[in-house]
Parts: sequence; structure tokens; C-alpha cells
Amino acid sequence: VQQANRSHPNLLVGQSGGPTAVINSSLVGVVDAAVAAGVRGVYGMRGGIQGALEGNLIDLGAQSPAVLASLRQTPAAALGSCRYKLRPDDPERVIDICRRHGVGYFVYIGGNDSADTSHRIAQAARDSDYDLRVVGVPKTIDNDLPITDHCPGYGSIARFLAFATRDAGLDTESMRRVDPIKLIEVQGRNAGWIAAATALGKRDDRDAPHVIYVPERRVDLDTVLVDVETIYRRIGFCVVVVSETLRDVSGQPLGSDEADVDSFGHRRVAGAAQFLAERITHHLGVRARFDKPGTIARMSMAMASPVDLAEAYQVGRAAVTALVREESDKMVTLVREQDTPYTCTTGLAPLTDIANSEKLLPDAFLSADGRMISDSFRAYANPLIGEPVPGAMRLADIPVHRG
Amino acid sequence: VQQANRSHPNLLVGQSGGPTAVINSSLVGVVDAAVAAGVRGVYGMRGGIQGALEGNLIDLGAQSPAVLASLRQTPAAALGSCRYKLRPDDPERVIDICRRHGVGYFVYIGGNDSADTSHRIAQAARDSDYDLRVVGVPKTIDNDLPITDHCPGYGSIARFLAFATRDAGLDTESMRRVDPIKLIEVQGRNAGWIAAATALGKRDDRDAPHVIYVPERRVDLDTVLVDVETIYRRIGFCVVVVSETLRDVSGQPLGSDEADVDSFGHRRVAGAAQFLAERITHHLGVRARFDKPGTIARMSMAMASPVDLAEAYQVGRAAVTALVREESDKMVTLVREQDTPYTCTTGLAPLTDIANSEKLLPDAFLSADGRMISDSFRAYANPLIGEPVPGAMRLADIPVHRG
Repeated sequence: VQQANRSHPNLLVGQSGGPTAVINSSLVGVVDAAVAAGVRGVYGMRGGIQGALEGNLIDLGAQSPAVLASLRQTPAAALGSCRYKLRPDDPERVIDICRRHGVGYFVYIGGNDSADTSHRIAQAARDSDYDLRVVGVPKTIDNDLPITDHCPGYGSIARFLAFATRDAGLDTESMRRVDPIKLIEVQGRNAGWIAAATALGKRDDRDAPHVIYVPERRVDLDTVLVDVETIYRRIGFCVVVVSETLRDVSGQPLGSDEADVDSFGHRRVAGAAQFLAERITHHLGVRARFDKPGTIARMSMAMASPVDLAEAYQVGRAAVTALVREESDKMVTLVREQDTPYTCTTGLAPLTDIANSEKLLPDAFLSADGRMISDSFRAYANPLIGEPVPGAMRLADIPVHRG
Repeated sequence: VQQANRSHPNLLVGQSGGPTAVINSSLVGVVDAAVAAGVRGVYGMRGGIQGALEGNLIDLGAQSPAVLASLRQTPAAALGSCRYKLRPDDPERVIDICRRHGVGYFVYIGGNDSADTSHRIAQAARDSDYDLRVVGVPKTIDNDLPITDHCPGYGSIARFLAFATRDAGLDTESMRRVDPIKLIEVQGRNAGWIAAATALGKRDDRDAPHVIYVPERRVDLDTVLVDVETIYRRIGFCVVVVSETLRDVSGQPLGSDEADVDSFGHRRVAGAAQFLAERITHHLGVRARFDKPGTIARMSMAMASPVDLAEAYQVGRAAVTALVREESDKMVTLVREQDTPYTCTTGLAPLTDIANSEKLLPDAFLSADGRMISDSFRAYANPLIGEPVPGAMRLADIPVHRG
């Protein structure tokens, strides 16, 4: 253990919640900046705060530059993650661990729940008069943190799904004589950010997706059947994007009887696409298929957004800069300066303003009927995926021979 | 319509069955070679043989080089596809259409069923004494055509899933405190070629996938539960690859009550991963998740294998070369010359030897227990994905700090 005193605090960093393609870039940003700032002991929590409470720490400052460079090309949380809600005596125990290891800087990379965890640890430090500065680093594919313009991790899942949905349109049009209806089920918890991103490659009415159902707008089965039938009758095929947490008008998850709840009380739901595929097949008399890329969409390094990778690293570095400047109980935010050309810098927000709060898709980012994205959403999200989705030749673009 | 005589036949080309990322490359190979050979009329079937029977033809020779170049970057079947089993009088009707358009060259890009279609048209031409030469171009993600070393389309889905499974291992290890079991359901009809490809990035016992269930080997639920529990107890997480058509020891599809049959009598099955996820969750008392990338894996242009793209174009060209040499009732095959460095050329095989036959994964390509790939499969499949799956940092590779 590196000995430390108040003028040379060690640093403890952890990763929490669902992994992304770029969360290790944030970790390396923290380590690089800490080493550059002269921090002697840089420790990683093996398995998030839950692992730290078990005494599972890794010496990150001792890792070679080659290992750190390789980590930036490695998706998912290399330190191991957790979804762990602190028990009443846990914050005090974390302070004890920090004291034992001379830790004066605490960085936690995560989403809303992790911000709550970090805030409680900052509080416990104040209560026990221990000099611990705490800064959160934003991370979530769901893009649902308040204040920050967007969240590292989102740009990469957005890029994966924008490309995949473009391709799904071509695939479904190809097979419209066989399987003319395709549903794609995507993540996003209570927010439609991920679902909205699937439309970033859409150029016109014929391109996929043809309709998007986001959790912000409740929808009943009959509406879906009418929407899909109308599109199918018009163009001969239909690609539908469905958030996995879609709710019907009574607020019940569409197509799910299960009430599976995680330790934070968030209901886990699956099955909207499968349920709708079965009903659409029955209603239209043609086969509807569904794809559920699931976690594959969130952790594809080959499809990661270069902008997202760079920003994830940047917010990691910014956390250390803030700590050295004696900031605490804050989260790093991304602050957009302009859309074209896209520039973004970092800021800070109180952890209490982030914790246990969520930013839903604003009405202005959806079309009037709520089932397609708006131009303002395109302007917001296009820079985040790093490059536009390339256009493609469609069957309809090739003139029919009149022989 | 381009007039044609026996010395200047026109060409008719179609795409059939499930699309791939590279089937348009085969189409462009046919068009390029036909134009180069002086064929004046190059027609495309809009919607496969079913579209041709409806009179839906496209003038492909008239397309600009820019359109053809764009098509090679466009996944799925740009002409539109079908799954259509010829009715008794259809071959005769196809001959009439060919006669009307001066078509002497017939190219059909597809799998086993398409080979049967092509063969029946070749037969009908002989029976009606019409000079039509027929050559098939291989295409199937399932890689289950006999004689040919492999099938265009396979290398690209193999690349997608090899990368995705590597990432799934990292993601699942990250989240082993929350969701330690991951199932990935993949395609392949009766053959395990696609399932096997998911292991191409696996370096050792800790890398995903940890076990693969292929349709060639029947398996009962208890065996799966024991396998998964053993792996989970040893390393703390487990990634399982399941073919969607996995059968139990009685020959019934695992987790499916449906008997959904397409027009060729192939049973359509879905649900093995979801079924197993539920049973594993119940058995182990930890949460098992499943991803079902479905058609997204078969048509990702961004993840397409460069080798596959090039070979798809090559087999398209080879079909025209064979036609001009007066070959007929044949399918182009890929003939591997050597593994290292990988070289491959083309050959021809009788359509009757391809039609309605399927090549299953040989025993030598699986480990002794049938649940992992062998080194000989790696030697076979690695060249097809175009580049090795990069290694990644794993939690287990980073030494724990002893504080």
C-alpha cells in the first residue's frame, strides 16, 4: 500500500451498473490523469463498491502503458461491475477502507444509482470528518442522466443500432415476400433515447425504422396493429422499433406478466417485441419476426463511436482535474458548445442533482405523433455516433424493366 | 427488350432465400462479368423466381457503375428475394419468359432450395429443346451446401458473431455479480456452422463461449443445467451459445411447442435460448439473460468479412465464365487451395449434387464432447472472417492488489 497524507492522497476508482463499449476508456482517463497529477496510489475496485466492501482492490497505477492502451480497446467494465444498493452502515465502511489505504480521491463511474452511491459516500466522509473528495463520472447507454448533454456509452449503442436498423430495413425489404414485418427490441429503461437513435440512418418514409415506440408514450395493442398494417399496405414491409419497457395505456408493460425487480426497485421487463410479433402475425396473416440484440448492442467494440470513445476518456480525466481542484460531491457533465461543427467540453454538477433522477426524451425530439424522431433529435444525436450512417441502394431505387 | 439470338444470348439473374451481407456482391460480379463478356441484355428478377413469374424484371446492364459500386456496399438482396417452391407448370413458364426476352443464360444466387429450382429450370429447357444454360451461385449464412468448401455469406455472419461473442464474454464477466449467465441464440437451420463460429475469438477456458450446443448433437435439459452449473461454479460466469434449432434427445426442438413450416417443409423454430434462460435462472438461482441477434447478425455491412465480400463477387463472375464456356446445370463452388496463407479458387459441381442436400458440421470440427470447436475448425474458419478477433484485457488478467 502506498502511504499517503493529506497533501498526497491516493485514488480509488470503480465501475458500476451495466457496462458499455467505452467505460474502460473512462477508467483509463482517470488512471492517466491521476498518474500525471502525481497520485502515487491508484486503486481499482474489483466489482464496484460491492467488491471494495469485500476488500477487492487492484493496483491500477502499477499497470503498464500497454495494458492501459489495450483497456481502451476492451469493451465492458474491466474492473467488474455491480448493482449494489448501499446498506446503512456501508458508507462508514467505505470510509474505513479509504482511511486504511490513504485514499483521498474517490471516483465512481456509473449512472443514476451510482451517483446516489457516490453522494452517500461523500456525506459519510463529511459526517466522520474524513477528507475524501468524491467525483462521479457519467456512464449509461440509456442516456437518461439529467444536466449532462449526453452520457458516455450512448453514442456507441446509438451507432450500433443506427447501422443495424438501416441494414434491417434492407433485409426486410429483400424478404418482404416471406417475412415482411420486423420488430427490433431495444433497451432504454424508462427513456426512449436508444429507440430514437435507431432512426439516425433514415432518409425518407421508405427507410427503416417505419415506426418507433418509446416508453415515454403509452400505446395500446390496437394502435400498433393499425400503424403496422397501414405501413405494410403502403410499402409492402415494415420495420418497427420497440422499447423493451413499452407500456400500455394502463401503464402495464406490453406483453409481460412478470414483475422482476432489481435491488434498486427497477422493474425488469422483457418480451414486448415477441408479444407484438405474435399479435401482428395473427392480425395481418403474414409473418412478423423479431430481433433482440440485447447486450450485444451495448458492448460492441468494433461498432463503437470514435466520438464516444474520446469523450469517455475525457470525462475520466476531467474527474481527476476536479478532484485536484478540491471539488467534491459532484459529477462530471458533458457540455455541448455547438452542433456544427460539433464541439463539447466538460462541466460539473452536484451529485444530488443527478442521483435517482432521470431525463426522458423531450417532446421536441419526437414527431408530433410521438412515433418518429424530429430534426432537432437528429441534430442532437448525429454528432454522437461519430459518422453518418451511409446511404444504401434500395430495391425501390432501381427502375423496373418494361419488357 | 434487347433482341438476342443463339450467339448473343441475354442473361437473367435472381437472388433467392435469406439475404446475407454479401449477396449483392455476387450480383454485381454476375453483371460485371456479363457486360465484359458482351452480353447485351442483363436482366434481374425482382423478387426471385416468384417475381420473374410475375413479369417483374429489372434492366441491370443499364445501371451506372456508381449504382453497381454502391450495391457492393449494400447488404441484403437488392433485387428482392423469395422462398418459392416451383409448381409443376412453373419451369415451363420460366422457359417462356426466357424465350420472350432472348435469355440464354440463367443465374440463380441461393442455397439448397435455389439449386433445386435452378436444376428444374435446366431440365425444363432440355425438355422443351430451348437453349438455356443454367448456373447457380452459392449463398447461405448456414454454410450447409455440400461440395463447396464454404458458402458466401457465412464468413460475414461468422465474423459478426465471433466479435460479438468475445464482447459478450467481457460483458458477462463484468456483470457476473448481477447477471452471470448469458445465452446467445444463433441461426444455422440443421447445421452448427454458425454456432461454431462464435468460438473463433476464444483463446482459453476463460474466454467466451464456454459451451456451444449445435443441432447435430441432441441434448437434454439436465445436461445443459449440469454444464452451465459446472462452468459457473468454476469461473463465476458462463456464456452459452445455442443453435435456434437445438433438439432434445427425443428429437423435439428445445423449448418450442410450435410446428411452423415454410413452403419447403422446413420447420421454423424459435425459443431455445429463452427457454434455457428461464430454466437456468430457476435451477441456479441467479439471473440468466439471453440475446437473440437474429437477422441483425446476417446483414451487417459494417461487420462484413472482406474475404467474404471478395469471394461473393468472385463466384458471381465465375458463373458467367462457366455459362460462356457452355456449362449448364451446375453450381459454382469455392475450392480451397491452402489454409496458410489462405488461397481459394472456384470450381463447378452438378446442381443435382447440391439441391436439397445439406452438409452438417463434421465430427472432426468439434471437441470430443461435441460442445466446443476443434483446432481443425479454427484452421478452416479463421481465414473466412478476414482477420483474427483481437484479444482483450480481462478482469482475471489484472493482478489483485494485496493491501
